[in-house]
Amino acid sequence: MQSVQSTAPIEADFAVAINQRYFEDYSPGSGATYGPVEVTAAEIVEFARRFDPQDFHVDPERAASGPFGGLVASGWHTAALMMRVLVDRYLSTVASLGSPGVDELRWIAPVRPGERLWVRIRVIDARRSQSKPDRGLVRSGIEVCNELGEPPMTVKAMTLMRCRPAAPSARETVA
Amino acid sequence: MQSVQSTAPIEADFAVAINQRYFEDYSPGSGATYGPVEVTAAEIVEFARRFDPQDFHVDPERAASGPFGGLVASGWHTAALMMRVLVDRYLSTVASLGSPGVDELRWIAPVRPGERLWVRIRVIDARRSQSKPDRGLVRSGIEVCNELGEPPMTVKAMTLMRCRPAAPSARETVA
Repeated sequence: MQSVQSTAPIEADFAVAINQRYFEDYSPGSGATYGPVEVTAAEIVEFARRFDPQDFHVDPERAASGPFGGLVASGWHTAALMMRVLVDRYLSTVASLGSPGVDELRWIAPVRPGERLWVRIRVIDARRSQSKPDRGLVRSGIEVCNELGEPPMTVKAMTLMRCRPAAPSARETVA
Repeated sequence: MQSVQSTAPIEADFAVAINQRYFEDYSPGSGATYGPVEVTAAEIVEFARRFDPQDFHVDPERAASGPFGGLVASGWHTAALMMRVLVDRYLSTVASLGSPGVDELRWIAPVRPGERLWVRIRVIDARRSQSKPDRGLVRSGIEVCNELGEPPMTVKAMTLMRCRPAAPSARETVA
């Protein structure tokens, strides 16, 4: 499979670089829009042959007379492309502890070959763990948008993030 | 990527074959357990390099000192493997109209290289569309289980399904 294209942010991004970002940086409202990611017919078919071989994802001819009037990406492919953007641009490389899950994953409109997608992410809320105070749960609202600004996919994702390590005290620094 | 292994049902399946199944066949409680699907380290790394290149999914050495103590599959990879089982065994090849989304997707436990997974599916409810009476919405509760019977992943999935076409009347048949 081809690699994802450049996903430079197209509006204000986090002030803190992705490799220095901790739980504390994911304050509600933080985030940006990243993209574009182009989706090719070859990739749509390749992904779907492996994971979602329904006619409307793998067979252009049958897809033409199917419910979407043509080939469309598997919703799981769109989700996976979104995840790649999150890893490249949003999720801290030093603090991410994985995800306990997502809610309200919605496939609203088909993603067709040649479309360019943007991923718009905003922190919904961030809650420090009571039982493990070295980490917190970040909930993010995500829209995958196309060139018309419509969201073919939306989802609310959870991520566990480590808190920023305490800075050494002056005494420790001197010692 | 390798193809998914045989996913023969290991308990009572639908009475109606997958290519003759319509909305009406997805009555609450219908379903089965399908599997096993084996997950290899090579596939975990291949999927994650493309879509979720976090250390704990792509780099066995760094993964060993990471939050999971070793390499684990991307949650999106587990979801994609589940989808393949749904397409092969559960979703009608003649009536499926795609999915408007899923709810409460939960990654409960890591999926590690060499694990074998089973997919347990049950129809939660099925509601005929008011506005488009030729179809209905099927909600399915899905558990991806490992050999210990634990569910590393659970999700509630929606699928739009065509209703069974009316049989031709006696007059039409004769004509």
